[in-house]
Amino acid sequence: MKGFEFLIKERENKPRDIGMTMVLDKGLGYESAKSLMEISADYVDYLKFGWGTSVIQDENIIKAKVEMYKDFQIIPYTGGTLFELAYMNNNVDLFFKRANELGFEAIEISNGSTDLSYADKIEYIKQAKDLGFHVLSEVGKKNPALDKDIGLEERVKYMNEELKAGSSKVIVEAREGGKNIGIFDKSGNAKADEVDYILDNISDKNKIIWEAPQKDQQVYFVLNLGSDVSLGNISTEDIISLETIRQGLRGDTLGKLD
Amino acid sequence: MKGFEFLIKERENKPRDIGMTMVLDKGLGYESAKSLMEISADYVDYLKFGWGTSVIQDENIIKAKVEMYKDFQIIPYTGGTLFELAYMNNNVDLFFKRANELGFEAIEISNGSTDLSYADKIEYIKQAKDLGFHVLSEVGKKNPALDKDIGLEERVKYMNEELKAGSSKVIVEAREGGKNIGIFDKSGNAKADEVDYILDNISDKNKIIWEAPQKDQQVYFVLNLGSDVSLGNISTEDIISLETIRQGLRGDTLGKLD
Amino acid sequence: MKGFEFLIKERENKPRDIGMTMVLDKGLGYESAKSLMEISADYVDYLKFGWGTSVIQDENIIKAKVEMYKDFQIIPYTGGTLFELAYMNNNVDLFFKRANELGFEAIEISNGSTDLSYADKIEYIKQAKDLGFHVLSEVGKKNPALDKDIGLEERVKYMNEELKAGSSKVIVEAREGGKNIGIFDKSGNAKADEVDYILDNISDKNKIIWEAPQKDQQVYFVLNLGSDVSLGNISTEDIISLETIRQGLRGDTLGKLD
Repeated sequence: MKGFEFLIKERENKPRDIGMTMVLDKGLGYESAKSLMEISADYVDYLKFGWGTSVIQDENIIKAKVEMYKDFQIIPYTGGTLFELAYMNNNVDLFFKRANELGFEAIEISNGSTDLSYADKIEYIKQAKDLGFHVLSEVGKKNPALDKDIGLEERVKYMNEELKAGSSKVIVEAREGGKNIGIFDKSGNAKADEVDYILDNISDKNKIIWEAPQKDQQVYFVLNLGSDVSLGNISTEDIISLETIRQGLRGDTLGKLD
Repeated sequence: MKGFEFLIKERENKPRDIGMTMVLDKGLGYESAKSLMEISADYVDYLKFGWGTSVIQDENIIKAKVEMYKDFQIIPYTGGTLFELAYMNNNVDLFFKRANELGFEAIEISNGSTDLSYADKIEYIKQAKDLGFHVLSEVGKKNPALDKDIGLEERVKYMNEELKAGSSKVIVEAREGGKNIGIFDKSGNAKADEVDYILDNISDKNKIIWEAPQKDQQVYFVLNLGSDVSLGNISTEDIISLETIRQGLRGDTLGKLD
Repeated sequence: MKGFEFLIKERENKPRDIGMTMVLDKGLGYESAKSLMEISADYVDYLKFGWGTSVIQDENIIKAKVEMYKDFQIIPYTGGTLFELAYMNNNVDLFFKRANELGFEAIEISNGSTDLSYADKIEYIKQAKDLGFHVLSEVGKKNPALDKDIGLEERVKYMNEELKAGSSKVIVEAREGGKNIGIFDKSGNAKADEVDYILDNISDKNKIIWEAPQKDQQVYFVLNLGSDVSLGNISTEDIISLETIRQGLRGDTLGKLD
């Protein structure tokens, strides 16, 4: 039983396909991660080993963390940059094999840091899916200047194609910082018209995960898209906070949700 | 014995009524919280389970954390927003009962997110006190626009009334961020004239807890009001840092305290 | 074995004299610190007990942390402000004795918060070295206004003299925040010309540790000075991240390193 059951706002239970939360693990120790999951796992759906962080962590700790996250009904997965590193090194097959050995059943495919074409990206998504992976893909460039070159129309076109190719979710890039990238301006404010355009043109709204690392961004999405919006790059410190925002249990959304 | 006893600046020991530190727990796991308290509990007086975070945490973990904090001579309490949620749901009695069951001996009463009148707030403070709770109350609105509507004179009047009604401490709102709210401007700088006005008109200076989440705010208060100012919304990472600021053991206050 | 060995960029192993990482411990609990080191110790060379934080921590926890860090082939040391506090209190001898008792084999000598003259600082560096300590020294003032008074030429002169006197490394001050101090402007951007001047005039480039608490600062140094630059005041959360930046495993440096 939770602390104050009579104040809980009904939410879909895990495993769920809406209102999902993707958390960014930048390199938590095993015991710290376990302590955190004991209190917050009900509110975590995906757990991303950020960018290439799993390259340099000891395999035994990775295996232990992956297993532990799975025991809590969380899907751990490798960040998109890791796939891109393997692609650049012509080692994609080895990457798939090794991810599997470490226990990962899900991976992210992106082209945010390399010039991998969208056509090839689609092929990799299909290939990963054929190998049995749960695939997430991400649209957007990590370099703000390059990111701005992607038109909105183009962005949504890619998102739809990637979903069609087999991505379970498509992630809208915002990095760890959440400023001056994708749908966020230099101050980190969401550009409402761009969000709306994406929503109006995506094949399935529920397949989007919006990266929203900052609290105000999380509040924006919950107030405008509802408690069941899927959000990503949530810091390990803010898991419980985000869930209170979703449930109207924090000042920012209290009394403002349906 | 501490690491370098000969450099310690004498401070009141716990339990104390001045120079208190209130820490904000946003959802720490039990083991992480315990590890932190082992090294820093001497410098923590109050531990707030922030806003509605305790609604969605497992009751067993809450009970264990509450017990653990008490073992370290810390007063754990429920954030004001939790009371307000219960008030909005006409469940205040159930809230008192449940807080007690979970082991809380202290609670915060606020009206920062609801339109609970100050007259009714006073009644709830009295009621909580009659039930045996140690009561903290908070003055200020979480919405900056609404917060600005409270005049200074009015603000201090409420603070005095709440203390008279039985609040052990009255908290000056600054939220987790500390910007553009209460006595802090958009950059997070304290408005010295407002601080002075409050100090000049409060019935008992030692009953104020100033929320001061940012380091520069903590330095401001210690330099201007002294080591024995009571501060709140201290992040779990900054407990030791704040104590070094209080004792002149960090560059910002070194050699600048009496 | 690491997670994805085939993507690792070769780096000097510990103990090393280049590409060192100095981490700032602001008061971690023992178990949390241990959990963190289990996953990241390969990427940590120095561990600083920041400013006067070790004054107020329990001696048993300090001893346990110092021992644990050493077991992981990390050099724990006391922050410069601690030495300065002892100097101000005419207790330098007692400080040396007590540091030794607690297990510290390394200490930092600075004059960032006091008016200790550079001539006397040199004497203390020699004295500490004669006592068998591994000595780090720091150049710069914690007060931005005073820090600006130190000319670049003067700054490098002191650095060279301190290295000659026996400092193993000389640290360029940036504090925990990294803004408006030393080589960083108000926004935290590095002043390239000042960095270049220091590099051109230092007796040994590899003896510098640049404090670079912010991610963009770390990226700047790695892109401009290479993976083997030594960086300091890295937060405990960013240890793994910094190593991925060094190895080109994060978007910011991916494909941009030799």
